[in-house]
Amino acid sequence: MSATGRLIGVGVGPGDPELLTLKAIRALKAADVVAHFAKSGNASNARAIVAGHLEAGVMELQLTFPVTTEIPHHSPAYCSKIGEFYDEAAAAVAAHLDAGRTVAVICEGDPLFYGSYMHLQVRLAARYPTDVIAGVTGMSGSWSAVRTPIAQGDDVFTVLPGTLPEAELARRLADADAAVVMKLGRNLPKVRRALDRSGRLERAIYVERGTMAGEVVMPLAAKADDDAPYFAVVLVPGWERRP
Amino acid sequence: MSATGRLIGVGVGPGDPELLTLKAIRALKAADVVAHFAKSGNASNARAIVAGHLEAGVMELQLTFPVTTEIPHHSPAYCSKIGEFYDEAAAAVAAHLDAGRTVAVICEGDPLFYGSYMHLQVRLAARYPTDVIAGVTGMSGSWSAVRTPIAQGDDVFTVLPGTLPEAELARRLADADAAVVMKLGRNLPKVRRALDRSGRLERAIYVERGTMAGEVVMPLAAKADDDAPYFAVVLVPGWERRP
Repeated sequence: MSATGRLIGVGVGPGDPELLTLKAIRALKAADVVAHFAKSGNASNARAIVAGHLEAGVMELQLTFPVTTEIPHHSPAYCSKIGEFYDEAAAAVAAHLDAGRTVAVICEGDPLFYGSYMHLQVRLAARYPTDVIAGVTGMSGSWSAVRTPIAQGDDVFTVLPGTLPEAELARRLADADAAVVMKLGRNLPKVRRALDRSGRLERAIYVERGTMAGEVVMPLAAKADDDAPYFAVVLVPGWERRP
Repeated sequence: MSATGRLIGVGVGPGDPELLTLKAIRALKAADVVAHFAKSGNASNARAIVAGHLEAGVMELQLTFPVTTEIPHHSPAYCSKIGEFYDEAAAAVAAHLDAGRTVAVICEGDPLFYGSYMHLQVRLAARYPTDVIAGVTGMSGSWSAVRTPIAQGDDVFTVLPGTLPEAELARRLADADAAVVMKLGRNLPKVRRALDRSGRLERAIYVERGTMAGEVVMPLAAKADDDAPYFAVVLVPGWERRP
């Protein structure tokens, strides 16, 4: 019986292809299959980031999320549908691993930080050899793009999904020295109110497409409520007690 | 009058030289001066990470921290001494910038995330053109080394310095889905007690020198209290509600 292939989660960074690591590029060159998650009808952002580094003729495997816009994201129905999708994605990847192929799953940012790759990792790591290649996170890309120090010294730093209830967002923002709020989209008006309630609105910075073409940066106070993409972030810099 | 040089904060990642980005390497090749922070008597870790990518004969500028072991780190005396050091470091960098030289300041991890570079950035950005190149953080390196998903979905993720009081650590650990505790060293016994009080000790993972030679990974419960380096971290993975 031949050996199975290896599963590799490859972080490809926040968007600028120059923020790929040497290790990620070597993994892409060595992979038999390059897999990526994408929403139905959308090209994969991760695929666009690595486009210049794919070997001609490499096998590709697109893992397309089911359309779930009609299902509330906290419902058991959503959880079950997404769980089934990850099971199927893991099976599709496993078929290549069983055939002895090394599969590189490319992931925006860092594979184990709010990424989809981890759902493959937990389903397959007991059966196949796995590696994870850390990547520059989207939030690092965002605060670097605006050249704004985010946290220092003994700062407490918190990452908050904009999906949290307004009161919880406000409480947690007030309790942290520095914060990043993710998953804006339709949550932006609520996030803004929570920042205002916690006294953090004045120093909040809105960043859209950090490190990428079409990058948008402005004080959150200057940003309209109506058109934030889901992957935009709000930065709340800390470090008030700096030397 | 000739133009001044450019100041570039260059993130060099968590330790594995393969986790350098293309952008960091290009900045090193193009720099007239490569500057790095180091403790007195210690070689710079950042310098070791980029050693294979420095141009022969490039100018180097070492910024050596003053010895402060005898001063409590929360005292005004410490703050004043460190503030003076950063002022002097900024002046040393500025001398090169005034001479028209591009200065790349190499930084472990990400330059604007708990790094020393930001103290130069805030002192010099009003007078000189600056760039910041995001890097893979030490904590991303650590959780990738152990292949442990840290946060997903609507998890709240928090970074806590081990220097915080035990009761505050325990409260904040209990309030987060996922956490990283930094700055262990002599704080490890206190951090362990705080994890125990918050019900997080069982899932806490100790990582030392993540992605580097001599990497150490174990359940925190198995780690002795007596010899953690300052830069070791404790990972508390979240994502209990995963699909």
